[in-house]
Amino acid sequence: VRCGMPEVVLAEGKEPEAFAEIMLAQVKAAGRCVATRLSPEHLDALRARLPPDVRMEHREAARAVILSTGDEPVPPRGGTVAILTAGTSDIPVAEEARLIAEEMGCEVRTAYDVGVAGIHRLFSALKDLIPADVFIVAAGREGTLPAIVAGLVDRPVIGVPVSTGYGYMGGGEAALASMLQSCSVLAVVNIDAGFTAGAFAAQVAHGGRRE
Amino acid sequence: VRCGMPEVVLAEGKEPEAFAEIMLAQVKAAGRCVATRLSPEHLDALRARLPPDVRMEHREAARAVILSTGDEPVPPRGGTVAILTAGTSDIPVAEEARLIAEEMGCEVRTAYDVGVAGIHRLFSALKDLIPADVFIVAAGREGTLPAIVAGLVDRPVIGVPVSTGYGYMGGGEAALASMLQSCSVLAVVNIDAGFTAGAFAAQVAHGGRRE
Amino acid sequence: VRCGMPEVVLAEGKEPEAFAEIMLAQVKAAGRCVATRLSPEHLDALRARLPPDVRMEHREAARAVILSTGDEPVPPRGGTVAILTAGTSDIPVAEEARLIAEEMGCEVRTAYDVGVAGIHRLFSALKDLIPADVFIVAAGREGTLPAIVAGLVDRPVIGVPVSTGYGYMGGGEAALASMLQSCSVLAVVNIDAGFTAGAFAAQVAHGGRRE
Amino acid sequence: VRCGMPEVVLAEGKEPEAFAEIMLAQVKAAGRCVATRLSPEHLDALRARLPPDVRMEHREAARAVILSTGDEPVPPRGGTVAILTAGTSDIPVAEEARLIAEEMGCEVRTAYDVGVAGIHRLFSALKDLIPADVFIVAAGREGTLPAIVAGLVDRPVIGVPVSTGYGYMGGGEAALASMLQSCSVLAVVNIDAGFTAGAFAAQVAHGGRRE
Amino acid sequence: VRCGMPEVVLAEGKEPEAFAEIMLAQVKAAGRCVATRLSPEHLDALRARLPPDVRMEHREAARAVILSTGDEPVPPRGGTVAILTAGTSDIPVAEEARLIAEEMGCEVRTAYDVGVAGIHRLFSALKDLIPADVFIVAAGREGTLPAIVAGLVDRPVIGVPVSTGYGYMGGGEAALASMLQSCSVLAVVNIDAGFTAGAFAAQVAHGGRRE
Amino acid sequence: VRCGMPEVVLAEGKEPEAFAEIMLAQVKAAGRCVATRLSPEHLDALRARLPPDVRMEHREAARAVILSTGDEPVPPRGGTVAILTAGTSDIPVAEEARLIAEEMGCEVRTAYDVGVAGIHRLFSALKDLIPADVFIVAAGREGTLPAIVAGLVDRPVIGVPVSTGYGYMGGGEAALASMLQSCSVLAVVNIDAGFTAGAFAAQVAHGGRRE
Amino acid sequence: VRCGMPEVVLAEGKEPEAFAEIMLAQVKAAGRCVATRLSPEHLDALRARLPPDVRMEHREAARAVILSTGDEPVPPRGGTVAILTAGTSDIPVAEEARLIAEEMGCEVRTAYDVGVAGIHRLFSALKDLIPADVFIVAAGREGTLPAIVAGLVDRPVIGVPVSTGYGYMGGGEAALASMLQSCSVLAVVNIDAGFTAGAFAAQVAHGGRRE
Amino acid sequence: VRCGMPEVVLAEGKEPEAFAEIMLAQVKAAGRCVATRLSPEHLDALRARLPPDVRMEHREAARAVILSTGDEPVPPRGGTVAILTAGTSDIPVAEEARLIAEEMGCEVRTAYDVGVAGIHRLFSALKDLIPADVFIVAAGREGTLPAIVAGLVDRPVIGVPVSTGYGYMGGGEAALASMLQSCSVLAVVNIDAGFTAGAFAAQVAHGGRRE
Ligand SMILES: Nc1ncnc2c1ncn2[C@@H]1O[C@H](COP(=O)(O)O)[C@@H](O)[C@H]1O
Ligand SMILES: Nc1ncnc2c1ncn2[C@@H]1O[C@H](COP(=O)(O)O)[C@@H](O)[C@H]1O
Ligand SMILES: Nc1ncnc2c1ncn2[C@@H]1O[C@H](COP(=O)(O)O)[C@@H](O)[C@H]1O
Ligand SMILES: Nc1ncnc2c1ncn2[C@@H]1O[C@H](COP(=O)(O)O)[C@@H](O)[C@H]1O
Ligand SMILES: [Mg+2]
Ligand SMILES: [Mg+2]
Ligand SMILES: [Mg+2]
Ligand SMILES: [Mg+2]
Ligand SMILES: [Mg+2]
Ligand SMILES: [Mg+2]
Ligand SMILES: [Mg+2]
Ligand SMILES: [Mg+2]
Repeated sequence: VRCGMPEVVLAEGKEPEAFAEIMLAQVKAAGRCVATRLSPEHLDALRARLPPDVRMEHREAARAVILSTGDEPVPPRGGTVAILTAGTSDIPVAEEARLIAEEMGCEVRTAYDVGVAGIHRLFSALKDLIPADVFIVAAGREGTLPAIVAGLVDRPVIGVPVSTGYGYMGGGEAALASMLQSCSVLAVVNIDAGFTAGAFAAQVAHGGRRE
Repeated sequence: VRCGMPEVVLAEGKEPEAFAEIMLAQVKAAGRCVATRLSPEHLDALRARLPPDVRMEHREAARAVILSTGDEPVPPRGGTVAILTAGTSDIPVAEEARLIAEEMGCEVRTAYDVGVAGIHRLFSALKDLIPADVFIVAAGREGTLPAIVAGLVDRPVIGVPVSTGYGYMGGGEAALASMLQSCSVLAVVNIDAGFTAGAFAAQVAHGGRRE
Repeated sequence: VRCGMPEVVLAEGKEPEAFAEIMLAQVKAAGRCVATRLSPEHLDALRARLPPDVRMEHREAARAVILSTGDEPVPPRGGTVAILTAGTSDIPVAEEARLIAEEMGCEVRTAYDVGVAGIHRLFSALKDLIPADVFIVAAGREGTLPAIVAGLVDRPVIGVPVSTGYGYMGGGEAALASMLQSCSVLAVVNIDAGFTAGAFAAQVAHGGRRE
Repeated sequence: VRCGMPEVVLAEGKEPEAFAEIMLAQVKAAGRCVATRLSPEHLDALRARLPPDVRMEHREAARAVILSTGDEPVPPRGGTVAILTAGTSDIPVAEEARLIAEEMGCEVRTAYDVGVAGIHRLFSALKDLIPADVFIVAAGREGTLPAIVAGLVDRPVIGVPVSTGYGYMGGGEAALASMLQSCSVLAVVNIDAGFTAGAFAAQVAHGGRRE
Repeated sequence: VRCGMPEVVLAEGKEPEAFAEIMLAQVKAAGRCVATRLSPEHLDALRARLPPDVRMEHREAARAVILSTGDEPVPPRGGTVAILTAGTSDIPVAEEARLIAEEMGCEVRTAYDVGVAGIHRLFSALKDLIPADVFIVAAGREGTLPAIVAGLVDRPVIGVPVSTGYGYMGGGEAALASMLQSCSVLAVVNIDAGFTAGAFAAQVAHGGRRE
Repeated sequence: VRCGMPEVVLAEGKEPEAFAEIMLAQVKAAGRCVATRLSPEHLDALRARLPPDVRMEHREAARAVILSTGDEPVPPRGGTVAILTAGTSDIPVAEEARLIAEEMGCEVRTAYDVGVAGIHRLFSALKDLIPADVFIVAAGREGTLPAIVAGLVDRPVIGVPVSTGYGYMGGGEAALASMLQSCSVLAVVNIDAGFTAGAFAAQVAHGGRRE
Repeated sequence: VRCGMPEVVLAEGKEPEAFAEIMLAQVKAAGRCVATRLSPEHLDALRARLPPDVRMEHREAARAVILSTGDEPVPPRGGTVAILTAGTSDIPVAEEARLIAEEMGCEVRTAYDVGVAGIHRLFSALKDLIPADVFIVAAGREGTLPAIVAGLVDRPVIGVPVSTGYGYMGGGEAALASMLQSCSVLAVVNIDAGFTAGAFAAQVAHGGRRE
Repeated sequence: VRCGMPEVVLAEGKEPEAFAEIMLAQVKAAGRCVATRLSPEHLDALRARLPPDVRMEHREAARAVILSTGDEPVPPRGGTVAILTAGTSDIPVAEEARLIAEEMGCEVRTAYDVGVAGIHRLFSALKDLIPADVFIVAAGREGTLPAIVAGLVDRPVIGVPVSTGYGYMGGGEAALASMLQSCSVLAVVNIDAGFTAGAFAAQVAHGGRRE
């Protein structure tokens, strides 16, 4: 395990059978292993090959799966990550970020779909999240929410563009562009990059608490 | 004069001498004529050829000039246009829009640099502008302000991307993209297109008041 | 209901089941609710969950559906919106715009497929539409029609690029570009953005008639 | 001389001194030689080296120069090329096309700035040009004029996008895109490619009249 | 029939049923009518509705269909069009061009797949095609063939980029770019635009032979 | 002062005189104020208007200036930021980040030009920087260094693309792209965005140490 | 066979039946022939038409097929090509390169999936490959591996971007850009262009050993 | 000196004074050092600081300079590189490649401006170059020449796109695209990347001749 991060396999773009072999080899070697961006075919291939001593947890909302050989949960390392989404379509990306941050021993608090329902819902959501060490904010289309949150909190805010929106600069491109051009202080990850957002946020949240 | 719009000449891209000739021919024919996006060279060429019976008004902030042969002001046609800008760099584009809307007989009210100073300044600015028939909102970098205004008022909001911002999708490109992708109800004109925004807004503001 | 606009749910990109739940929650809360850009799967999911006291109207040409709990029609607010299309492929986008404008209490008049049949058909179509307060013009490929209409009428014209055309800058990109670069006075919405065009036009058409 | 075309040197991008040497070598070898897209520095370098037996004709409007050792004019080969421009900024590109077509022995008729002054001016311009074998139409910004002309004449129409227009897809990009996407029958050359348009049109105009 | 061109319907992007209705209405009105870019569904819809007095000719290689009410062939108008392709994947686009040129009364000669087999095969192909009035050259990937042909013949050459090639600037984009940047004298149509190439070439080939 | 950040004015794009007025107003109001991306003209305008009671510190390497009315240094808030650059051209962007992080009360340690001199120089540089809470890594051209650093340290790494490199995707575009696509865990800011990188890093470095 | 290269047919984009005919004609003429980028449909069409005297070898990992009429293996021409991949998704492209290099008579050594497992695995892989005359390095996402290898070996390194990675500049675009911008000495082929990489490497490996 | 390559400093983008210091430090350390892409200001700064014991050779055509402390020439390592250009504007890039290949101990033969003067001039040029181990071919605009050369020689061909050409995909972009899409076997470097082409070619030319 490099740098305290979980073993994470990107299923997308891999042949289902090859993918399953890689996963089983990794869980053997490391005791625990995560895969993201799974298709149903990836899941089937994994299920068909799963040995009795490997536990498999399917996180549907995150399009992810966790394999483990033991029963011990992830050891807590301290630090809290807040995750917000602008709409409901952004939730899978947010859930991927959450899974990774939890695998890295952080506490995660979420407030989803707070972008369209007016500023009041956002204010009350932020109240619950304020003790967080770092904020992840996922948004599609024009991607405004991260900049608004960054204007309201003192802690670092990571913007995650999400691949929604049709027409010119749809598919998350306008969201990425507006986050990079923002007058607010934001750091950004690639479109739909829930894994990177979650792992980076966990590194921030760990703070002085070294392994 | 087509469709009640003023004669407007785009100076940019024209040879100064040729530009001056065109302007003088138009003011002769129409009695009044406007030029936008002038360089100092355009201005010099115009000054050097100005006959004594033509009045020239230089609107520096709008990078524009008005030529007229008579003294009568533009006849009012009714309708009020509100123009807001996010920052100070957006003001020249806003002033170009204002000039055109005024030339088309509208009353114009402005509130500049209301994007960065916090939501309170925006609220108090909007209070003064609320009776307007239509809003023009100019913004560069990530171009968020038009969508925020559109969420607060019932009248149509026209977004004008402004060519500020460096790096990826700078020069107004991110602003254009985020306005086109906005969940708010916005219509958009091209980057720096103050003329189009002003003329379109005046058409909206005229409402039932036909010529 | 924000700003006198109908509740509109964008079906595209939402899981059919989640989509149906959102719709039913909204129609409960607001009495009336619209969804646009539906797939057959979205429609099936909605039909399978529809309670007896909710009325469902399927507008196939607009790829939209209206849910309502009562029988009262939309209260008229005044104002007339004219909608033109260049070809037959532009009609679904035009119908989406029409649905929204009608939901916002406007009268809508349409003239479809008037771009290719010669200027005479356009002239006679415009004669019927002239009393309109605002024009929506949908066009794909090179997207010329909005600029032509804007040269012929005094009222504001909103260009809607439509995702037709193959090859370089196909899929509505050339249409968007030529509308933004147009010498005519046009405001523009994103490619295929019938919803935004309809809602913006209704705001223009409402004019002084405040809620 | 390849394929009956004049020797044409593209000055832009060449060191003035090297450019002048190339020109003088070519006029020595071929008796006649043209250069396009000259800067004042290119012109100065040429003037400083011009031998007494070489005639130099500066075509300022075309940003071009013609060198020749003899006095015979270009021998006529028959065929008429019509050249139209939408605005005044398109004239240098049109003049470059004209120069090349004339060098290739064609008669050229022009009608400049007929795009903005209403359809009547275009109609009356076309009446004079109708006997032409081929039409070149230069237009910037949204580049609509070539498609309109193509709808009115039976002969081939070549669209030349011109690098005018600011903002998104300015500099001739929108014009190129809309000409390529046009429903009208158009062939297109690159942005500002007056040379290519003129030479191609001359080839069309030559028709059966082989050298 | 506008400008002596056949009625041509673009099937792609139209609902099969609506498409069939449009075709039958046009053949009724004009006696003859062509459709291009058909899917099998378009063909089925047409077959299912075909009245006994309408003849239907399916040109599979051109992905096109011709409907006619009478038996008279297209009247010849004179002029010869040569069509070349670089590879075998370019043939459908070439066949679409051929169909249109023949419908416009031209003789068509073809030489397909002459781009890869060495310059000798091209030379011998050109020998057969030389009397042609105009050349259409279709090529994908880097799109070099049109420029080579233009260097060898005196008549006008129209480049047609074809949507082949994977990776960066695949799908015909590199071919379009290299044809537009070519030092040879070429006019260009959009990617896969066989219809436009065929109709433009026929206009050239008609030469002085007016209808 | 919003969110514990210094008042920072972006000089670029502002008229020198207007810029100087804004700066003097801000230093009056806030006691301290920073400007970045200054031209010599901005500096001159500031010098010409500087009142005797305002201290001006010119940070040439950062293209920045600090105005202050008092003599107290920035109060330390704890936290250490490490800043690395791949080459020497990246130093101005790194210095802008350093200035902002110091203004926000952080200790900053730097290691410049460690990308090209072999991995050994990087290793020894990292040894000195290891106690840092967060790393900023600035790199142009292909932008590889941030990913390498992220593979070697446990703390969060912020990639800053720098506008160097000519040709395709030069000017920082390839660097931005490769940082966003990186398999390493990186958060990214826009090209040349030293201000954003410094402010974000300071927020991370503050950790639990709230104001 | 041109230039000692095998006959290679690109199956992608060809109709299965036409593809099979082309293959059989080529194997008849040349005795041996390769096809790459096959779909299952291409394979079926080939199998259905395979005459008894033609041997068919299916290289699944390379998505390729080899037809031959005789039994003699490819004659060795000397030279060794090393092929590395960063991940497992890059293997099909690497295998296509390997097949071509072997068909051109080179020895090939491979080390796959050496990009993510830490620098040690790369070092030990390189030790086995060091005697190679040339290196092919295939990598997706940010495409860093070729530059790292080029920094470690004296022989030429060819970068092959692979179409993996989602979001902005995914699909191999970031990899292509970073290889072209690399400070290391790299030559590059198009995204997924295993054929070109393999053939170019074989030409390098042949060195002085002319046919 | 890494991997037998000369110390090469990219002057472009460096402050003249800082550049001169770097150069002098490198020549002290390594005895010899090269700089490319120099402006006159870089050259002046170097001249002003040149100590008497450092020799400076200005290669104007390559926009480069060589500093050395001793008098020994570069030791020959064997291997011949052929460099061709399509036009005269490509020569500076070719000269930069030549300088690097010579610094790496190769013999270089050149044939410039062989792209436009007909295939015969190319054939006779190739005859002189044939014994070369590797070919560099520089070309701008549509960038066809490298593919033609690759079709005529057995040795590896490296394409160098050059930043000439105006309009769409000018500045070397079309040349890069067409080289990457080429059906011929080509490896490519970035636009204007003479240094990379020369160094890569030298590595190929060294062949088995290890240091
Ligand atoms: N067809 C449509 N095009 C653009 N925006 C829409 C469309 N339909 C709904 N919206 C808006 O998109 C936003 C997000 O929608 P939802 O995800 O349904 O909450 C809401 O503000 C909707 O009003
Ligand atoms: N204005 C122009 N636009 C496009 N091509 C040109 C122009 N002027 C010359 N050319 C052509 O560009 C090619 C290279 O020109 P040169 O560099 O002058 O040898 C030749 O084939 C010229 O005929
Ligand atoms: N394959 C094609 N490519 C380009 N344009 C076409 C094609 N087929 C038909 N067209 C033209 O496209 C325009 C719109 O076609 P339609 O929508 O069928 O009326 C008409 O002017 C047709 O002549
Ligand atoms: N170098 C910089 N890069 C990015 N943003 C900046 C920079 N300098 C100042 N800003 C911010 O840009 C916004 C607009 O600045 P101003 O126009 O100075 O009010 C403010 O929020 C500043 O904090
Ligand atoms: Mg904040
Ligand atoms: Mg509103
Ligand atoms: Mg109008
Ligand atoms: Mg016509
Ligand atoms: Mg020719
Ligand atoms: Mg790390
Ligand atoms: Mg190396
Ligand atoms: Mg070869």
